[in-house]
Amino acid sequence: MGTDDVRDAVLDAARAAFHARGYVRTSMKGVAAAAGVAPEVVNRYWNSKESLFAAAMQLPFDPASAMPQLVAPGLDGMGERLTRATLDLLADEQSRNDFIALFQAGASATKAARGMQDFIERAMVDRLVRTLGVPDARLRVNLIMSYLIGIGTTRYVVRIEPIASMPEDDLVKLVAPTIQNWLDPTKPLQKPKGASGGSKQAKTTEPKPRTDG
Amino acid sequence: MGTDDVRDAVLDAARAAFHARGYVRTSMKGVAAAAGVAPEVVNRYWNSKESLFAAAMQLPFDPASAMPQLVAPGLDGMGERLTRATLDLLADEQSRNDFIALFQAGASATKAARGMQDFIERAMVDRLVRTLGVPDARLRVNLIMSYLIGIGTTRYVVRIEPIASMPEDDLVKLVAPTIQNWLDPTKPLQKPKGASGGSKQAKTTEPKPRTDG
Repeated sequence: MGTDDVRDAVLDAARAAFHARGYVRTSMKGVAAAAGVAPEVVNRYWNSKESLFAAAMQLPFDPASAMPQLVAPGLDGMGERLTRATLDLLADEQSRNDFIALFQAGASATKAARGMQDFIERAMVDRLVRTLGVPDARLRVNLIMSYLIGIGTTRYVVRIEPIASMPEDDLVKLVAPTIQNWLDPTKPLQKPKGASGGSKQAKTTEPKPRTDG
Repeated sequence: MGTDDVRDAVLDAARAAFHARGYVRTSMKGVAAAAGVAPEVVNRYWNSKESLFAAAMQLPFDPASAMPQLVAPGLDGMGERLTRATLDLLADEQSRNDFIALFQAGASATKAARGMQDFIERAMVDRLVRTLGVPDARLRVNLIMSYLIGIGTTRYVVRIEPIASMPEDDLVKLVAPTIQNWLDPTKPLQKPKGASGGSKQAKTTEPKPRTDG
């Protein structure tokens, strides 16, 4: 097989595996076996399951590289970076249509949609949660993703004004402060007792209260 | 015609008119004429275009009655009331499926979807904006609706944990404070110069600050 043929064979096998077994239960090794190539061959093209999934499902971005770039400069300004990355992605019509299709698939709860949900949870939510290093990181990331999904829906699907027609820079200025606020470890979430947000660290000590008034 | 026949004829005419001309350009009078009844007959069943639209489109709620109920008790606690009303509505599987269908129609930009967007903007957003009486009300309502849409999508469509499985009361406690914050007229939005939020009243004087604490 030529290089492109190998690549296509792996992507076909990956797509079939993700559809059949979902994201979590598919392995790089299993895909290699199904494609009839050595695991090293798959790794040569995609160095993580996230990247392979992004390629097989033709996602408009690869979180394995995109998320670290957003997180690396630190919490400072991350609200703006997350907002801008989301809006930049959705500003591209093809990416936007891909995402709307994903959400429609999600609504219908097919196996492929279930794979997509696992992927969003593992490759995007988990990755952010791990790297943030703030208390209740999972809850905070849930709120941030919800807000960004909602802003995207308001702008491009329901099209409510003024968000629908606002210049991207203005929308970033409007949206980012709330996200930055959720990223601030000195500002505890108002959450019920015992709701650890699915975090493994079920600490009983609360983060220190805000002191900035 | 019997009472039910009259009602059905008006609803059929209304549905056809909303589909053909959209929400804004359809009138109660025009629907009455198309159904072959006097305008008073239409008014006997539905006292506003919002209510007629809600009935014709089989919406799970009528904003003409639901929105004033949410707003009437004042800004205090409105964050929680808005959050709870949204989650209550979406907790019902039929309502939820209706809403998902609306958003899918919105994504495809058909005439019916355009009517739905006009309706959401006029019957829900405009109504909240008018009654809130806070500066930048339209921008604030845009953010609130975006956030609630996003929370609903995270819980029921993308199904990210822990929001997907969290008891409703816990989710209300988590989500409502941010919404209450956006409703607080003493907390200005961080917005760019000149972004009046699409409001017709481009006043330079701000509405009087709240005095209820």
